[in-house]
This record gives sequence, C-alpha cells and structure tokens, in this order.
Amino acid sequence: MLENFIYISDMIGVIACAISGVLVATRLRMDPFGITVLAGVTGIGGGTLRDMMMGATPVFWIVDNTYIYVIITTAIISVYWLHRIHRFPAYLLPLLDAFGLAIFTIIGAQKALMLGFSGPVAIVMGCITGVVGGMIRDILSGQIPFVLQKEIYATASILGAALYVICNYFGFGQIVAMVIAMAGTLSLRVSAIYWHLSLPVFSDDREA
Amino acid sequence: MLENFIYISDMIGVIACAISGVLVATRLRMDPFGITVLAGVTGIGGGTLRDMMMGATPVFWIVDNTYIYVIITTAIISVYWLHRIHRFPAYLLPLLDAFGLAIFTIIGAQKALMLGFSGPVAIVMGCITGVVGGMIRDILSGQIPFVLQKEIYATASILGAALYVICNYFGFGQIVAMVIAMAGTLSLRVSAIYWHLSLPVFSDDREA
Amino acid sequence: MLENFIYISDMIGVIACAISGVLVATRLRMDPFGITVLAGVTGIGGGTLRDMMMGATPVFWIVDNTYIYVIITTAIISVYWLHRIHRFPAYLLPLLDAFGLAIFTIIGAQKALMLGFSGPVAIVMGCITGVVGGMIRDILSGQIPFVLQKEIYATASILGAALYVICNYFGFGQIVAMVIAMAGTLSLRVSAIYWHLSLPVFSDDREA
Repeated sequence: MLENFIYISDMIGVIACAISGVLVATRLRMDPFGITVLAGVTGIGGGTLRDMMMGATPVFWIVDNTYIYVIITTAIISVYWLHRIHRFPAYLLPLLDAFGLAIFTIIGAQKALMLGFSGPVAIVMGCITGVVGGMIRDILSGQIPFVLQKEIYATASILGAALYVICNYFGFGQIVAMVIAMAGTLSLRVSAIYWHLSLPVFSDDREA
Repeated sequence: MLENFIYISDMIGVIACAISGVLVATRLRMDPFGITVLAGVTGIGGGTLRDMMMGATPVFWIVDNTYIYVIITTAIISVYWLHRIHRFPAYLLPLLDAFGLAIFTIIGAQKALMLGFSGPVAIVMGCITGVVGGMIRDILSGQIPFVLQKEIYATASILGAALYVICNYFGFGQIVAMVIAMAGTLSLRVSAIYWHLSLPVFSDDREA
Repeated sequence: MLENFIYISDMIGVIACAISGVLVATRLRMDPFGITVLAGVTGIGGGTLRDMMMGATPVFWIVDNTYIYVIITTAIISVYWLHRIHRFPAYLLPLLDAFGLAIFTIIGAQKALMLGFSGPVAIVMGCITGVVGGMIRDILSGQIPFVLQKEIYATASILGAALYVICNYFGFGQIVAMVIAMAGTLSLRVSAIYWHLSLPVFSDDREA
C-alpha cells in the first residue's frame, strides 16, 4: 500500500516534469530525440543526484526500467499533443513544475529517512530531489534556473520536506504524512505563483 | 583482444574529445591549466557520470591513471599545434565531436551490458557516455549545448546504442557488434553535418 | 590532532565558500532560501562530486550533519551582515574564493591519498574539490565560471595539490605538508589577484 502510493506519486511527478522538459525543448526547436533527452533529464535528474550522493547505486531508474518507458511515452504523447493544440496556457509550465516539486521533494525526503539518514539530511535530499531536475533543464537551455529566481520555490521545497520530517517524527502514518507534506508544498508554491508571493530579497544593489 | 579493442577505442575517443575541449578553451582565451581542465572534462566527463550512476566507483580514470596522462599529453600537444598553425578548418570541432560521440556511445552501452544491466539501460548509458562530456564543455563555456541544438546528434547516439544492443542480442561477436554500431553512429552524425540533415522540429512558436 | 586540523580547515573553507555563494546570490536578488541553496552548493559542491567519484558514499555531509548547520548559520549571518553594511569591498569575493580554493584543494588531495589512491589522482581530486563548488555557483547564476577565466586559478589549485603530494612523498608530517601546500596555493592565487598575474593564453582569434 505505502509502496504503491510512493510508486504512483513518483510516476505522476516524472510525467509532470517530463512534460515540462518537452515544453522547454520545443521552445528551443529541438528534434524528437533531443526533446526526449530533456524530458528525461527533468524527470529523473533530481532523483539520480540524490541516489548518487547517498550511495544508493545503481540509481533507481537503472534498477526499474519503467521510468525510462514512462519518459519516452510521455515525450511522444506530449510532442504529438503540443503539435495539435495551437496554444497552451502560460501557467502550464509553472504548474507542472509545482507538481513535480511537491511530489519529488517528499519522495526524496522519504527515501532518505527510510535509508536511516537524519532529519536534516532528509530535508536536503528532499530539496535536491525536488529542484535539481528543473535546474539542469534550465541550465541546458541557457537560462538562469527558475528555482533561483522565482518566488517561494526552494522555500516551498525546504518547508515541505521539513513538514514531512516533522509529521514523521510525531508518528503520523507514512501516507498521511506524505499527503500532508505534498499538499503543503504544492499549495505554498501554487499560491506563490497565483498571488506572486515572495519573501523579501536581499540585494547588494548598494554596492553598485 | 576484446579488451584491447575497447581500450584503444576508448583512448581514441578521449583524445578526440580532449582536442575538442582544447579548441573551445582557446576560444575562451584560457591559460594552459584551464585548457587542460576543459580537455579533461570533455574527455572523461561522460564516462564519469555513467560510472557514478551505475555505482561502478571509483570511476574508471581513478582506477587507471593512463587516462589522466593521455589528457595532459593531448592538451599539451594540441596547444602547441594550435599555436603553430594559423587557422584550422571549421569542420574540425564537429568532426572530433562526432568521433567521440560514436566511440563513447558504444563503449558506454557495452560497459552497461557487461555489468548485467538491461538493453534500455545500456542505450541510455551509451547516450550519457556519448553526449555528457561535450555538454559540460559547452555549459562551462557559456553556450547552449551543441547536443541539444545540432541535427541528428542525440539521435545518432541513441540509434547507435540501440544498434549495438540489437547486434549483441542477435549474437554478433562483440568486436563486430561494436565496429558496426560505431560506424553507424559516426556515419549518421557525419552525414548530418555534411548534408545538414535534421529531423523535423516541434516548436511552440505559435504560443508566442 | 591531524583530524582536528583537517576538520577545522574544512569548516573554514566551507564558511568562506558559503559567504561567496551568499554574495553572488544577493546580486541575483534571491530570497533567503535560495541564498541558502547557493551557499550550500558553493560550500560543499566540490567535496560532494569528489566523494561520488571515489565511491566514498554517502558523501561527507550526509555522514556529518555539522556541515549543513554551518552552512545555514553562515547564510543567516552573512545575509544579516550584508544587509547592515552599505557596501562591501570588491576584493571580498575573490579573496573568499581564494581561501576556499586553497583549503579545499589540499583537503581533497589529502582524502584521496588517505583512501589509497595515486598521486596523480590526488592532484585531480584536489583540483575538483577546490574548483567545482565555485564553478556550479557561477553556472547557476548564469556566468562563465570564474575558474575558467581568471588568472592562475586552476593553475594555483593544480600546483598546490602537486606541492602537497610532493611534500607527502618526501615524508613531511601531514600537518606541515598541508600548511605548506595551502599557503602556497593561497599566496599564488592572491598574488595573481593582486598583481593581475596570468599565464600566457592561447587563443584561436586567427581563425576568426
């Protein structure tokens, strides 16, 4: 039951991130194979770095090839679908990103706790799993990563992972804790997109 | 015999990629040590990521220091040679890149199969080994990676790796399978360079 | 004694690099959590890649969470302090970077030798530990990495690591060897900053 919940959530996250990769790839006028590469990087980049850091190698998608098939299928369907519709709404990319962020953050934190690492490590691992895929996608496409610029992005990931670790500490059921933390991360990030919320920034403009 | 073939091919790939790193580094007006760093990243970056993902650590060039010496020697000779000639042909960089792509793709796929991983994983590992070195080189030098823009690049890598896996599946001798797949990858990529072949691109220009 | 020396040096390096990450992050007008992410990447990025390559996983900061706390504390204090002062000197960033470079290079080389790897591997690992954190920081913030452009940067790292390996080979005490090599790296880099020293560059401008 728990395993199924994690597995299905993870697949939803991979699909959401892979589509976001396809969206960015089409802007760069990539060919179908390049699109699949960018979809893959976005979909499994964060979890790959997480597993390499924790020494959980071979990394997850080498062990379970389903991830590869899901990414290829997602890339093909998305390309076909993008080709059909004449415009897609501007909020689609940040929204897909928000889903990926919420799901991957909590799954990353869960995996770290499950492997016996501490709460702080689980929060960092959650954050890495959540943001790195999109970060690599943005770097590859020549942009300053989304995560480092947009309102309440790393913030949502860190707070969401912390919420999961706290729920876990207080003995919540695993699935309950994950749903609460995913919902918290997602609503925080989506609210930030919708109302353009942001934390105060600290700039050194004065240095000029 | 097989081991020798793989080892010599790998060294040719490292040399080709290291020279391509030197070419890019001189454009950025780097000093000799910076040039060596970029040569090294391009020459062994892809295989390093492959080994880390598969858990084959310490990575190959830590185990066999010859790679380090080959890169340093290549960097020194290339710098000297570039300094001597007054211009080098514009097709040199893509051609070196094509050699590295063909060799590294098949060697990466071969290593994955040899370690007992599945065909799809071998294809992905081949692609990672083939394209990541050049990708990091381009990112470090502030460009959108070649691989994500140029005609039939990721495509040649993926199809070449698939060709190798298929030849292997049908019981071809290892060296025969590798030569066929390397030749296939190289000719596909070189043809694409020569005739400016490309697959249809999918762009969301309409979104505007 | 040796362990304490390494640990304290490492922490000083992490703090110096984390502050440099905060400086860059404030220029990009990041929020506090984004700043912490960039501080962390700069502070522990190099050592993380080193450990993953050598197979020394889980990486060091997963095993010893002190690194996470030090980075968070450094980020908070730096942000507060940057917010208070009205301008900070232009040489602060390169100077912090030079400290991180000197300390991390030698610590990386030391760890590689301690794990039984060869001298050349230790030099490469030292260089990776020294330069990669700042490299990722610069890429994430959309700049061509400092290390690939600035005078005697990779050079100082490589020569410093080589100096350490040589001192070690000739039987110098560990701490003495580390202090000599750190001082050598730091003075080489600081001299280069101060007098704008650089090695001759090789450029292919003639290719035009």
